[in-house]
Amino acid sequence: MTFELREGERLDDLQVRDLRIIQSKEVFSFSLDAVLLARYATLRNKDRVIDLGTGNGVIPLLLAARSAENRAEIVGLEIQERLADMARRNVQGNGLEGVINIVHGDTREALQTFGSESFDLVVCNPPYRPAGVGDQSLNEHVKIAKHEITCTLDQAMDAAAGLVRYEGKVAFVHRPDRLADIFTAMRARKLEPKRMLLVHPRPDKRPNIVLVEAIKGGRPELRIDPPLIVHNEDGSYTPAILELYAGRGELGT
Amino acid sequence: MTFELREGERLDDLQVRDLRIIQSKEVFSFSLDAVLLARYATLRNKDRVIDLGTGNGVIPLLLAARSAENRAEIVGLEIQERLADMARRNVQGNGLEGVINIVHGDTREALQTFGSESFDLVVCNPPYRPAGVGDQSLNEHVKIAKHEITCTLDQAMDAAAGLVRYEGKVAFVHRPDRLADIFTAMRARKLEPKRMLLVHPRPDKRPNIVLVEAIKGGRPELRIDPPLIVHNEDGSYTPAILELYAGRGELGT
Repeated sequence: MTFELREGERLDDLQVRDLRIIQSKEVFSFSLDAVLLARYATLRNKDRVIDLGTGNGVIPLLLAARSAENRAEIVGLEIQERLADMARRNVQGNGLEGVINIVHGDTREALQTFGSESFDLVVCNPPYRPAGVGDQSLNEHVKIAKHEITCTLDQAMDAAAGLVRYEGKVAFVHRPDRLADIFTAMRARKLEPKRMLLVHPRPDKRPNIVLVEAIKGGRPELRIDPPLIVHNEDGSYTPAILELYAGRGELGT
Repeated sequence: MTFELREGERLDDLQVRDLRIIQSKEVFSFSLDAVLLARYATLRNKDRVIDLGTGNGVIPLLLAARSAENRAEIVGLEIQERLADMARRNVQGNGLEGVINIVHGDTREALQTFGSESFDLVVCNPPYRPAGVGDQSLNEHVKIAKHEITCTLDQAMDAAAGLVRYEGKVAFVHRPDRLADIFTAMRARKLEPKRMLLVHPRPDKRPNIVLVEAIKGGRPELRIDPPLIVHNEDGSYTPAILELYAGRGELGT
């Protein structure tokens, strides 16, 4: 495996099936949220999948690792040329050109680019924070990835609802304080929330991550999973998280 | 304290401030859900409160126990005459006639009965199951309490949204599989979900109870509490639940 590294970039071990990933503190590094989403989404044999706002391509890489036997076709869509380039080098370095296609483009125009109902599964780890809120000293790359500057939740949901086929699945990861927004945005687009997982930093703390998977045209009935706890009382990782980072274990029931 | 008991009724200890409660296996007995709701709802000094579908009045009794210094005024509305009568005897037996007023009436007509925006807090432990689903051998009293025969979730939410004042609170307990229904029903009526608690029978099990409190006209931002676990791995009650049944401890953060 050969990875072309640019200034300020480093090569990390994804610890799943020998995958490696180029990251950069200044431009983009993935978080637990992406790992969780790539494991929580329902991936079926030969699914056609798109990741809206793929960043350095971490979610397509982890989905590809899950689908070695599945032979999914995965598209990673990224609006920032600098990140799309990083994602492409990650795909090439890991020899996954036959599985993952990185496209430089805008989620808000994805429906025109790919056509309606063209995917079995849409996943999205969107910017969590409204534009203009929080640390304004962040560089432009990080700002766009973390704030709703080029894509709001409603815009991401518009794209997801349009791109997914009838009875296909849409999986989002977000902050729990937006849960009512997520449910109402989904329902307004005939995406029925069917599975949900809350992730708590410790057993006695409020959740800081939520994962929701909807089915287009699904029947109303939500299944909420047992809580996923990240750290034990002593600060160490819980067995569930260690399994997850090792690419093993089931996420959700 | 003198309680007038009818055939098939028993007198139970509520274990909170010497409260006792008349119950009946055939007609109505309260569940953990009611205890949780009475503790989770935000109760302020001198609040005017209504409990929609009060059954034997367990929620007003427990709210009154919380509000000994608060001097809340609590209305319990019940459509079944047999249950309204039981609730009235519970209020009298516990000497709470000055605090709780039991009204025999229909939640679907509550807005006409009490007038719009006439309460600071509306609580509701509605029937959970659609009409015609599940065990049809239940007697009429239990059927009406457990199934959406005389009141659906949307009808209960209509009443709650109409009865509560601007910036007042509405707290519901329900099944987690209806969470998307609850959020969309609330939002459609300008009730913004602000607090939520999931209750799991054991740490590794899916939740079977959800509590949601909304504020009329509130700003969108949901606070999800740490999970409440009912049983330890060995089947015994957790400390949090023992505290709750003893009328102590905080529910939600």
